[in-house]
Amino acid sequence: MGSTSVNREMGPALRVVMMPRDTNPQGTIFGGILLSYIDQAGAVAAREYQPHRFVTVAMDKVEFKQPVFVGDLLSFYGRVMKVGRTSVTIHVSVEAQRFTDPREVVPVTEAELVYVAVNKRHEPVPVETPPETVGGEALPKAD
Amino acid sequence: MGSTSVNREMGPALRVVMMPRDTNPQGTIFGGILLSYIDQAGAVAAREYQPHRFVTVAMDKVEFKQPVFVGDLLSFYGRVMKVGRTSVTIHVSVEAQRFTDPREVVPVTEAELVYVAVNKRHEPVPVETPPETVGGEALPKAD
Amino acid sequence: MGSTSVNREMGPALRVVMMPRDTNPQGTIFGGILLSYIDQAGAVAAREYQPHRFVTVAMDKVEFKQPVFVGDLLSFYGRVMKVGRTSVTIHVSVEAQRFTDPREVVPVTEAELVYVAVNKRHEPVPVETPPETVGGEALPKAD
Amino acid sequence: MGSTSVNREMGPALRVVMMPRDTNPQGTIFGGILLSYIDQAGAVAAREYQPHRFVTVAMDKVEFKQPVFVGDLLSFYGRVMKVGRTSVTIHVSVEAQRFTDPREVVPVTEAELVYVAVNKRHEPVPVETPPETVGGEALPKAD
Amino acid sequence: MGSTSVNREMGPALRVVMMPRDTNPQGTIFGGILLSYIDQAGAVAAREYQPHRFVTVAMDKVEFKQPVFVGDLLSFYGRVMKVGRTSVTIHVSVEAQRFTDPREVVPVTEAELVYVAVNKRHEPVPVETPPETVGGEALPKAD
Amino acid sequence: MGSTSVNREMGPALRVVMMPRDTNPQGTIFGGILLSYIDQAGAVAAREYQPHRFVTVAMDKVEFKQPVFVGDLLSFYGRVMKVGRTSVTIHVSVEAQRFTDPREVVPVTEAELVYVAVNKRHEPVPVETPPETVGGEALPKAD
Repeated sequence: MGSTSVNREMGPALRVVMMPRDTNPQGTIFGGILLSYIDQAGAVAAREYQPHRFVTVAMDKVEFKQPVFVGDLLSFYGRVMKVGRTSVTIHVSVEAQRFTDPREVVPVTEAELVYVAVNKRHEPVPVETPPETVGGEALPKAD
Repeated sequence: MGSTSVNREMGPALRVVMMPRDTNPQGTIFGGILLSYIDQAGAVAAREYQPHRFVTVAMDKVEFKQPVFVGDLLSFYGRVMKVGRTSVTIHVSVEAQRFTDPREVVPVTEAELVYVAVNKRHEPVPVETPPETVGGEALPKAD
Repeated sequence: MGSTSVNREMGPALRVVMMPRDTNPQGTIFGGILLSYIDQAGAVAAREYQPHRFVTVAMDKVEFKQPVFVGDLLSFYGRVMKVGRTSVTIHVSVEAQRFTDPREVVPVTEAELVYVAVNKRHEPVPVETPPETVGGEALPKAD
Repeated sequence: MGSTSVNREMGPALRVVMMPRDTNPQGTIFGGILLSYIDQAGAVAAREYQPHRFVTVAMDKVEFKQPVFVGDLLSFYGRVMKVGRTSVTIHVSVEAQRFTDPREVVPVTEAELVYVAVNKRHEPVPVETPPETVGGEALPKAD
Repeated sequence: MGSTSVNREMGPALRVVMMPRDTNPQGTIFGGILLSYIDQAGAVAAREYQPHRFVTVAMDKVEFKQPVFVGDLLSFYGRVMKVGRTSVTIHVSVEAQRFTDPREVVPVTEAELVYVAVNKRHEPVPVETPPETVGGEALPKAD
Repeated sequence: MGSTSVNREMGPALRVVMMPRDTNPQGTIFGGILLSYIDQAGAVAAREYQPHRFVTVAMDKVEFKQPVFVGDLLSFYGRVMKVGRTSVTIHVSVEAQRFTDPREVVPVTEAELVYVAVNKRHEPVPVETPPETVGGEALPKAD
């Protein structure tokens, strides 16, 4: 089964400003920072599809097209690519609005990630079943 | 002069996931983390209005309505409240989508901040003048 | 009821050195870092008044008078402004001892914050009652 | 042209201890932390092959086999898979020595990354040419 | 030559609140965090004696007497032990005010550090000479 | 009783890349960062000797021989110096592989640390007794 609705009308899965503490020894933004946000953004998009707990099982085909600079505003957009029995595949695309000229918006990275829905015991559960009915497990409420 | 266009249709100024490293000794999210993002979100909204460099000169009336928890997805919305000669006043509102139940979205904080547009020498410049024409100063390009 | 004893003779509520990881894209210290320490400093001052657990409910009238630079030594002084039944209002003032010339000490920020005393269940408790007698709840000892 | 020498006899490219600040909302280690170290480890391995400046252009086929826990000692091993004219492909494998039982060592992740050798102007340079002879550019000395 | 003035009347060299992000895998505060603040506190005390740039050349006899817990308020006191031609030896003592009971203040660590006064070229300079007259080098002003 | 086996054939206890966020106000690597890794590296070496939980009780004779720069690859080697009834003394030596020229490897720091083996209640236990037989306490398994 597949679903490809674009979440862009809901805004980005994540949007963050790059700070000096995020730089690598060359003075541009450290790729590991981008990969961290990509991982989070994919999980946010998976939870928008169905509000499960998800764990990342794979990240494929990350391409770094453009360097990212201090002060850039990054927007991470997630899109559901494929829905399996217990997994969801998310495509994440990243845009940078430049600090030095906010009118310049460039694509910087794309990635594809696979998340598996799990219950509290970290066992895979069907994605399409609403979380609260999986094994009679109610969703915890914030207290 | 005043402008009050809501930026919500453009998505949030910032959107981030709260992590365990963001907690205070009581286990909820440290207020300082929220204040940091509020400061950034206001600057993002100011730059959407006019792409200047902005410095924060005041933050007023921050109210913490609800605690924020690890895993919550926070969205920061910025709205231009007032535009002065060299300053912009931004209202920032913050919503939390709960980790424990993503269908629950609650307002957590509101704040009002004042930003002053500055040139490279940190001198105030008129907000309404496009950045590149202020004192003959061209916007630097990302290199 | 009001109390306005200055805690300066007890030294600052907080004192910290600003590091490169605390900078914003313009190379000065990120305002969010200052706001985080102001929030902590106010809580320290509230606890010096009466050793409760406190949660921040509001921050008012923060003014940034001077930029702060890498290497500056910041001192945060807290002063009790007002004591309500379950809340304490704290005034925090911040001084910077410059890294480039430690003989230069300048005021950089001031703020006013409201904290509410809470018990372990996050319920408000009277400020003037000693913590250990609130609802028969003994203060936990460090183990 | 290809080279597949295993660097294991030189020890790991990176070795780090996982701390509480590295956790995700589920209490295990945040995948973004692992991805950050994988990116660094690949660059270390590329520089062991030839001491250039390298930038990451792609990350492929990351698989997360096992969760990582607080206190685990992670070793990242890099291996040169392929050497192109201006790029090097590195395979990174990650092992966790468990905190709860240091005699238990498990494979946790594998990844493949592509790095491009660049000069100071971020222009690609041939990998096989020693850095100091690329465009007459001497390697800078630490001052 | 020796000087042993206690700086306690000036308040602590540093004072900070311990946060969850500062913990080690055992849940108490990571010793490396304490060592970092001790290093900074000694430099603050050296600069109070004479406003030079100082670099740490040795740290001796650190003893950890008591664990430190999340929420504790730590005060670092520096005392000049010995002044050499280009170096200053500082004794740092650390006290913890417990989060769980702020009326409990315990000594947690002591250390002795040696700092060397340097000019901008990292060359040692005499400690007793005022910084601005060392080699005709004026102290830079914050700009 | 004494043991002096060098662990170098097993690779370093830790190996990490220095990033811009690790710098001090002078632009070199902050000594506190090095001290943090030295503390961790000693604990890793102690656990390689015998897989206990260890707490640091002292750090002696740290000498900083050379500054460390952004991008340097640091290797921390641990060596057991002395084994007491409940404590282990570890010598840690640190080498920097320079970022600007990876063929240059220099010794940067040395330190000696004392760790005490403890059980879950933080009580000292004999080092030579295998962890799982101390007080009938089984090592917890990662779940």
